[in-house]
Amino acid sequence: MKHFLSIDDVTDLNQLISSGIAAKRNPFGDSELGKNKTIGLLFFNSSLRTRISTQKAAQNLGLNVITMNVGQDGWGLEMEEGVIMNGDKAEHVKEAAAVIGSYCDIIGIRSFAGLQDREKDYSEIIFQQFKKYAQVPIVNLESATRHPLQSLADCITIEEFKLKQRPKVVLTWLPHFKALPQAVANSFCEWMNPMDVELVITHPEGYDLAPQFVGKGQVIYDQDKALEGADFVYGKNWSSYSNYGQVLTSDPSWMITEAKMALTDNGKFMHCLPVRRNMKVADEVLDGPRSLVIEQAANREWSAQAALREVLLGMQH
Amino acid sequence: MKHFLSIDDVTDLNQLISSGIAAKRNPFGDSELGKNKTIGLLFFNSSLRTRISTQKAAQNLGLNVITMNVGQDGWGLEMEEGVIMNGDKAEHVKEAAAVIGSYCDIIGIRSFAGLQDREKDYSEIIFQQFKKYAQVPIVNLESATRHPLQSLADCITIEEFKLKQRPKVVLTWLPHFKALPQAVANSFCEWMNPMDVELVITHPEGYDLAPQFVGKGQVIYDQDKALEGADFVYGKNWSSYSNYGQVLTSDPSWMITEAKMALTDNGKFMHCLPVRRNMKVADEVLDGPRSLVIEQAANREWSAQAALREVLLGMQH
Amino acid sequence: MKHFLSIDDVTDLNQLISSGIAAKRNPFGDSELGKNKTIGLLFFNSSLRTRISTQKAAQNLGLNVITMNVGQDGWGLEMEEGVIMNGDKAEHVKEAAAVIGSYCDIIGIRSFAGLQDREKDYSEIIFQQFKKYAQVPIVNLESATRHPLQSLADCITIEEFKLKQRPKVVLTWLPHFKALPQAVANSFCEWMNPMDVELVITHPEGYDLAPQFVGKGQVIYDQDKALEGADFVYGKNWSSYSNYGQVLTSDPSWMITEAKMALTDNGKFMHCLPVRRNMKVADEVLDGPRSLVIEQAANREWSAQAALREVLLGMQH
Repeated sequence: MKHFLSIDDVTDLNQLISSGIAAKRNPFGDSELGKNKTIGLLFFNSSLRTRISTQKAAQNLGLNVITMNVGQDGWGLEMEEGVIMNGDKAEHVKEAAAVIGSYCDIIGIRSFAGLQDREKDYSEIIFQQFKKYAQVPIVNLESATRHPLQSLADCITIEEFKLKQRPKVVLTWLPHFKALPQAVANSFCEWMNPMDVELVITHPEGYDLAPQFVGKGQVIYDQDKALEGADFVYGKNWSSYSNYGQVLTSDPSWMITEAKMALTDNGKFMHCLPVRRNMKVADEVLDGPRSLVIEQAANREWSAQAALREVLLGMQH
Repeated sequence: MKHFLSIDDVTDLNQLISSGIAAKRNPFGDSELGKNKTIGLLFFNSSLRTRISTQKAAQNLGLNVITMNVGQDGWGLEMEEGVIMNGDKAEHVKEAAAVIGSYCDIIGIRSFAGLQDREKDYSEIIFQQFKKYAQVPIVNLESATRHPLQSLADCITIEEFKLKQRPKVVLTWLPHFKALPQAVANSFCEWMNPMDVELVITHPEGYDLAPQFVGKGQVIYDQDKALEGADFVYGKNWSSYSNYGQVLTSDPSWMITEAKMALTDNGKFMHCLPVRRNMKVADEVLDGPRSLVIEQAANREWSAQAALREVLLGMQH
Repeated sequence: MKHFLSIDDVTDLNQLISSGIAAKRNPFGDSELGKNKTIGLLFFNSSLRTRISTQKAAQNLGLNVITMNVGQDGWGLEMEEGVIMNGDKAEHVKEAAAVIGSYCDIIGIRSFAGLQDREKDYSEIIFQQFKKYAQVPIVNLESATRHPLQSLADCITIEEFKLKQRPKVVLTWLPHFKALPQAVANSFCEWMNPMDVELVITHPEGYDLAPQFVGKGQVIYDQDKALEGADFVYGKNWSSYSNYGQVLTSDPSWMITEAKMALTDNGKFMHCLPVRRNMKVADEVLDGPRSLVIEQAANREWSAQAALREVLLGMQH
């Protein structure tokens, strides 16, 4: 059985990227693959792109889709083992996962970091528990530490738009007044590592990502220096990993503007969206020809389709 | 590309009404038309009839349907251009519309009037922005100023139940303690204008609708006089347009009763629903043989099917 | 027209159980039966198993499914006749039921007991009103007093796991700090009555169920005595019927543990879920080989499929 939780579940990244591009060209070529199978999409958090693109990809593959806002349509789930359940959680994940796994052939889950307890967030307990008890493939629709469907869409987008064999890809931190998870940034690094790119990561001091995600990425604290010669600028805000969940600065000089983009080698701008305009990125960049954010988001459908196709193929063995 | 936002998007109203009646007789006659296409239904406000009837109509046409409660499943969207997004809106409509438009072949949107700022409401900014950025046909599931799927269902109902070539149709204001939008009343007038009917509009002074919607409609402030000889009485509450969003009166003598209906020429009663019984309309009318409210609501499925059929046919060119 | 509201709607229970077991073996054998038909699922309360399993069963039968969280996606419904609707309920069930019935071929409804007014709860007014006004078959997804899809799943599970022709089945009350409805317990008794089982019901004094549900069930207030020789132990908490909706005790000695299960004849443990671990039932029971709770929940798909199949067959006459 094949899960899709992180880059570790990918056997051949090039093949997976090609599969996404193939799906884009011929969306209904595998429409029999999911026939008489059902994917359950469980949202513990809000979603727009992931919700719609994953449903769309599933339907392209002939899957039935059942979507559920867990807390809202149902009730809170207890994740810890051995507790006396006399609080506000009405059901244990042991039962919920096993039961949903008996109805659904695949389960997609979105559950963000709480940003209070690093060890807990980074243990990915919800995903571990569903993996253990559901007995069906689990697909990560963004977890506390990763967002692999986004990262695969990012890989597809870079593959489509790169003009050099080995482009320079710069992940840059952007200012934000709220504390956001590290998931997208972590995951982007994790997926860029096996790609044939020069990966540079730039952020204010104190915002270093967990080392296991950085890998071959070179950290440069000077944003201007980091942007020099970039082919792709990937913007994202995240809160501190070392001072876990803290906003250490929201220095507006880190906002991406045309002046910043002028430092690149005619670089393209990427962002996973949603993006707060004129706080993280200037209108002039997002509305200009350098921006790939719409193309990148559109590729979410094809990354989801490639990932679900892998999962479905893995179920035939 | 063909949108369905107002009567202005209708080329031939008689043909559209006939198409709705044809769908009612043979719901699955066009079930291949929407094959491998997806409609996204975005609800910024609550819905019952529109939500269910539009899904049903879409499924009759073979469309896949993805439904989303925007604020609840996702997050608030910024509609204004050029702002610094440091408030509670996490995403700009520029991105949201473009991205949803990349996943969905048609987008249906419900977004009511806020009733605070007339110019803003009447600018229909959400619909204008989606039209501009989504690049796919937009269907109005009730906007700040219009409810065309309701109006088309009203046209179908009048066509089915009229006993004269040119019936007298009276739109009457009904009392309500809350401030409600003008959308249904506006839209009803706009669609009655090209119909072969005598249109009379009655309401207390201060409740005049925007002149661009009234058209050939004759305004009579005396409800009893207006109802004389009516073939159809169309009840609806709305708040003031001139004193925008205000409740100027909730005079109970405007409630439709059997005594009021006795002034008509054996008239039928219509209302878009939901209706507050015994405040806007008496039980005796709604439960009696004059009421068409259920037939009218049932026709929402066929008006949606006719509208979506037009949109789908428009996509083939 | 055939509703599915209680055991009274079942013509042949053995045949219905067999139909559920047949669906489990061949889920898609009747996938043409629901073609071009739509089931609307209306949730006035939260749901996990019922929501997913009923959707799944409906899709297995080829039905289209439209799901709606009534209060959340729409608005409150007035159930009483003749009232002046000037409060917080925007629509009367007369209209809502008739309209939804015009769009949907079958309507499933979940609406829990309010536990404030016994007469009102036990009148099942929502279901009576929908039955009266919707003019399509109504399926009970858990009402104030019954949960027949659960009970049918329970019958299927007992049929599958029984080792004796006439097993002893003990329904035992479990401790809980919150007031819960009697629906599952009522319904379980109602469905065990026509089964070839010895039915024993055990609970603290003051927790007697309504006599019309108890039927042939023997009430024993001493839990240990009741459990002696049991083949199936069915745990559930409910609030008092006589002191309506009250929590009279949450005596922890009523929790089901391995020591309690040791009193049985190698009995199996059942519970409708969700279950609060270590408050109602000990981990050792739920995680041990005696527990049937996952198998039982999995059978919800097949009980729903058997019930919907009956309803669909009833529509062909």
